[in-house]
Amino acid sequence: MKLKEIRDKARQFAKPFRVTEGGKFRLRDFDPGDTLDFDSGDKPRAEEALREGVETLARLQDRLYAQDRWGVLILFQAMDAAGKDSAIKHVMSGINPQGCEVHSFKAPSAEDLDHDYLWRCMKVLPRRGHIGIFNRSYYEETLVVRVHPELLARQKLPPCRIDRDVWKHRFQDIRSVERYLVRNGVVVRKFFLHVSKKEQKQRFLERIEKPEKNWKFSAADLAERDHWDDYMRAYEDMIRHTATPEAPWYIVPADHKWFTRLVVAAAVIETLASLKLEYPTIDAAKRKELAAAKRALLKK
Amino acid sequence: MKLKEIRDKARQFAKPFRVTEGGKFRLRDFDPGDTLDFDSGDKPRAEEALREGVETLARLQDRLYAQDRWGVLILFQAMDAAGKDSAIKHVMSGINPQGCEVHSFKAPSAEDLDHDYLWRCMKVLPRRGHIGIFNRSYYEETLVVRVHPELLARQKLPPCRIDRDVWKHRFQDIRSVERYLVRNGVVVRKFFLHVSKKEQKQRFLERIEKPEKNWKFSAADLAERDHWDDYMRAYEDMIRHTATPEAPWYIVPADHKWFTRLVVAAAVIETLASLKLEYPTIDAAKRKELAAAKRALLKK
Repeated sequence: MKLKEIRDKARQFAKPFRVTEGGKFRLRDFDPGDTLDFDSGDKPRAEEALREGVETLARLQDRLYAQDRWGVLILFQAMDAAGKDSAIKHVMSGINPQGCEVHSFKAPSAEDLDHDYLWRCMKVLPRRGHIGIFNRSYYEETLVVRVHPELLARQKLPPCRIDRDVWKHRFQDIRSVERYLVRNGVVVRKFFLHVSKKEQKQRFLERIEKPEKNWKFSAADLAERDHWDDYMRAYEDMIRHTATPEAPWYIVPADHKWFTRLVVAAAVIETLASLKLEYPTIDAAKRKELAAAKRALLKK
Repeated sequence: MKLKEIRDKARQFAKPFRVTEGGKFRLRDFDPGDTLDFDSGDKPRAEEALREGVETLARLQDRLYAQDRWGVLILFQAMDAAGKDSAIKHVMSGINPQGCEVHSFKAPSAEDLDHDYLWRCMKVLPRRGHIGIFNRSYYEETLVVRVHPELLARQKLPPCRIDRDVWKHRFQDIRSVERYLVRNGVVVRKFFLHVSKKEQKQRFLERIEKPEKNWKFSAADLAERDHWDDYMRAYEDMIRHTATPEAPWYIVPADHKWFTRLVVAAAVIETLASLKLEYPTIDAAKRKELAAAKRALLKK
């Protein structure tokens, strides 16, 4: 399949989940259990599609790296057990790690708290030619910090800098910084893995019951579950204020992991395939140099 | 003198040089040789004032550090030999280096060029309680890169990201990021050391003629001097677009170094003294703890 066809197919597939204008976004318009025209019997077909997608991604990434112009920032936000780690693992495992870095943002360190909240993310932004994946991100500043305002107090901000506009300002600042990044050759794509409360319960139970999954469970996750509705409101507001044409959000149905991966893969393929990635061409002088090198090598 | 008096005096002194609304700014309204009511015979008086100023600064910085809430970003831009190094040395030498870091931004490295242009500056922003001094800064992106557009080509931006709006966008992005920093407890003050072309010639000659100053001269500086008028236009446009109430520029007369230092010191004092810096107070529990510690110590 030609690149253009691949791009169009991926774009078509990801389209129902892409939000580029946040204004009218409502979370309830999106079904965490959505699988489009796939049903559970189609899992093998979905897996085959993912395998092909990952191969395509690897080919595109090779060009991205060689061309060395664009940086790609892919960030994931979600409730616990929505499948962030698994999406990263399954969608990104085919690509060359030399051109890809994953950063996980957990609770900020003392050094992080001593800086503005974007600092810890900005200093590890992907370099040109690379894909940078943020497992959680600066958006936590509008989610966990909003649901738990006591965390804001821990950020050591001068008290006069905290007022009722603080969330509005954070959204505005994040929009501005993403616009700046886009202008400067960083492509920004944002994924909200949308899991239902019911499915989260199932996954937590599995983490508790299966010994090999025990390490993934923490009692703190259960405490956060109690704030489910607050979180959903915070996610909705965040997407409303920060979904833009240049830095869209994808609301990825996350109750079926195999489907989540397909949507993420399609969205990343669509993104890379639209960048006109090309291997650098060489000029006449360089071509002459290569020819001379070949002659010299053959003589030895 | 009480802090409030000091602040008012410093504010008064720095006022003629402060630009908080760039709209109508014209560089020619500012005289590089200005010394207010000081004349050259007043140099000893100016030096005494600077000595007092530096002491005040040190006291304020001690509170800034102890309070650990505000970060202070002070950045210097100027033509070569305008006295940036010397201003930093003479104004900042009295303060505790534990709470102060100077970063000089020369030509960007290959790693820098592999990132967005703010990256190398953002990752070394001052932490809370600290003063960060940028000797040149991201503003070079609107100065040397503007005067020498071939440098823009070296930044490895995707070609579609360079259009005629590039400078307008850089100003907008810089304003946005400074607004973000201010909202998050970083105080931003910007100094343009305004030297005349004539005085620069004298200082270059001195660097060439005095062996102990030879190391400061580079032939490249002379080449930049040929672009003087382009630079002045770039500085003027930069200040017009980025002087704001929350992140003002100071246009510091730089033909007399002793006066330059006074203005810089006054502006920094004005800034710190307006922050309501206070040593952290302790609560009853902590006071009890201190009392117990004292009793225990005295018994030994």
